[in-house]
Amino acid sequence: MTPTSRPRVLTGDRPTGRLHLGHLTGSLRTRVALQDTHELFVLVADVQALTDHFDRPEVVRTHIPEVMLDYLAAGLDPSRVTFVLQSAVPELAELTLHLLNLVTVSKLRQNPTVKTEIGQKGFGDAVPAGFFIYPAAQVADIVAFGAQVVPVGEDQQPMLELSREVVRRFNGLYGDTLIEPQALLSAVPRLPGLDGQTKMGKSLGNAAYLSDSPDELRRKVMGMYTDPGHLRASDPGQVEGNPVFTYLDAFDPDAARVDALKAHYQAGGLGDVTVKRHLLDVLEELLIPMRARRAQYEADPAGVMALLRDGTDRGRVIVAQTLTDVRAALNLVRL
Amino acid sequence: MTPTSRPRVLTGDRPTGRLHLGHLTGSLRTRVALQDTHELFVLVADVQALTDHFDRPEVVRTHIPEVMLDYLAAGLDPSRVTFVLQSAVPELAELTLHLLNLVTVSKLRQNPTVKTEIGQKGFGDAVPAGFFIYPAAQVADIVAFGAQVVPVGEDQQPMLELSREVVRRFNGLYGDTLIEPQALLSAVPRLPGLDGQTKMGKSLGNAAYLSDSPDELRRKVMGMYTDPGHLRASDPGQVEGNPVFTYLDAFDPDAARVDALKAHYQAGGLGDVTVKRHLLDVLEELLIPMRARRAQYEADPAGVMALLRDGTDRGRVIVAQTLTDVRAALNLVRL
Repeated sequence: MTPTSRPRVLTGDRPTGRLHLGHLTGSLRTRVALQDTHELFVLVADVQALTDHFDRPEVVRTHIPEVMLDYLAAGLDPSRVTFVLQSAVPELAELTLHLLNLVTVSKLRQNPTVKTEIGQKGFGDAVPAGFFIYPAAQVADIVAFGAQVVPVGEDQQPMLELSREVVRRFNGLYGDTLIEPQALLSAVPRLPGLDGQTKMGKSLGNAAYLSDSPDELRRKVMGMYTDPGHLRASDPGQVEGNPVFTYLDAFDPDAARVDALKAHYQAGGLGDVTVKRHLLDVLEELLIPMRARRAQYEADPAGVMALLRDGTDRGRVIVAQTLTDVRAALNLVRL
Repeated sequence: MTPTSRPRVLTGDRPTGRLHLGHLTGSLRTRVALQDTHELFVLVADVQALTDHFDRPEVVRTHIPEVMLDYLAAGLDPSRVTFVLQSAVPELAELTLHLLNLVTVSKLRQNPTVKTEIGQKGFGDAVPAGFFIYPAAQVADIVAFGAQVVPVGEDQQPMLELSREVVRRFNGLYGDTLIEPQALLSAVPRLPGLDGQTKMGKSLGNAAYLSDSPDELRRKVMGMYTDPGHLRASDPGQVEGNPVFTYLDAFDPDAARVDALKAHYQAGGLGDVTVKRHLLDVLEELLIPMRARRAQYEADPAGVMALLRDGTDRGRVIVAQTLTDVRAALNLVRL
């Protein structure tokens, strides 16, 4: 691969479901912007996906091409982005084991994301050790690629802080070896679900997907939760906590128009159906080019997997070099 | 490597110290016997050694050739035994991560050996996650080599039981893939230290090493703890809890002679110096051929490492095949 002076970024997803509008505001738009200015690696984290899908590995397998299509549809440009399949870079597992010595059990237990997820996933007392340690595996991913920048949401900050701590500890013990990553904190608030719940999610049944057809999208938008007190169009309506307006804030490029709609809605005289039709137009404008790119790539599934294979080959060279450095730092014997 | 119908055995050690008489009774003699009847793999577990020596990696590095010399001196025959360096088989790390999904955090927390060791090592609240999960890494080692038999002491039984559980769970979820290992339980009680403490150990300063010189051995045996109430040779002495007699039980091939010495000691009239001189003769007879083999191998350090390299190459072929099977069972994508 050609050397580059652009800062390196690692991002990625667990391939366990299709990507939705929440991913677009939460991460995909940032990545599409970063591909112009940074050297962008996107990890399809199938090994990490198995930590909570080990009893359904076929779900993970199915979603690897799905997630690739979502990436390409969203505008990630394979000529500038390196897509890497985690399981095809086993050096990441080796690095994870080495870094686990520099992370304490209590640190992992305190991780707020893991804590929350353990509750949500209903593991009860049977938390899989693989799931418990996944923050350390994420640290290994970041460090293995030598990422200088990692885009994170508010809730991923502890993971990035852990990465920084582990790098400092490693370099302190064994000499300067690993790069300490910087957080690129996303200022975008989390997109609520179609039902107004704080989070959009597949399991919550309140998501609009990048791959939704025009019919599916229309049905979902027209059925969205709004202000339950806004019974007649002539009534004044609430904008706060009304996901239709939150979506307009997130997706309508014309902020002045959104402000005018909000004022009208609050004053009364603007019906929900009218606002939803407008949101639908905005979302269609966003999704039409994505559907076109998806259709193009969908016609060539082998080509999509070839993009993943080529990226993985390039990524593995970098990771292998990091491992060589780490093994030397750890004083491992070369036979 | 030539196929064999002999049952496969995996054993090994963390290379963090020289091997002593306790290792001889605890594991080395069993291995020397097994090499005649079994296909024996001996893992030099340097990665596992780092879980509690990550801040002293040079200790691990130094002891890899030392432990090899101990093995060869003890009579392990490189033409029949496959020596494998753990860090040179990174597939073991990959398998460890996959198997961690089938082990719960509470199961690891309940492991009695880990519990005891955490206390001994003084980790306090800062237990390294790598150390915490090492039983799962041991499981991965055992199943990676397809070991049918694993020699274990009493205290290692929970680890073997964990291996069996993980194999049953894996095969239940993904179809018959891994071999369930059987325990070969050692009936030999643990050898006490020279000072009569229940355990012989480097850190306890009460060990006689296979590599001790005749002078060192004489000094150690003549200074051994005996019955503190046995003040004059003419006094009756205690045999129970007297490590000199425990060692004779363990190492003197002439059981009738040991029985006669015990009776004489208990009746009175047998001095400690006389018994210790006899023990020294017995141990010298044991160690003289070991010193000869050690001297021979010590003269060729590159040859010793070549034995480790050749064994590692052979072992890696087997582990790679297991990984191929595991990856297929987990439905991982082949790019």
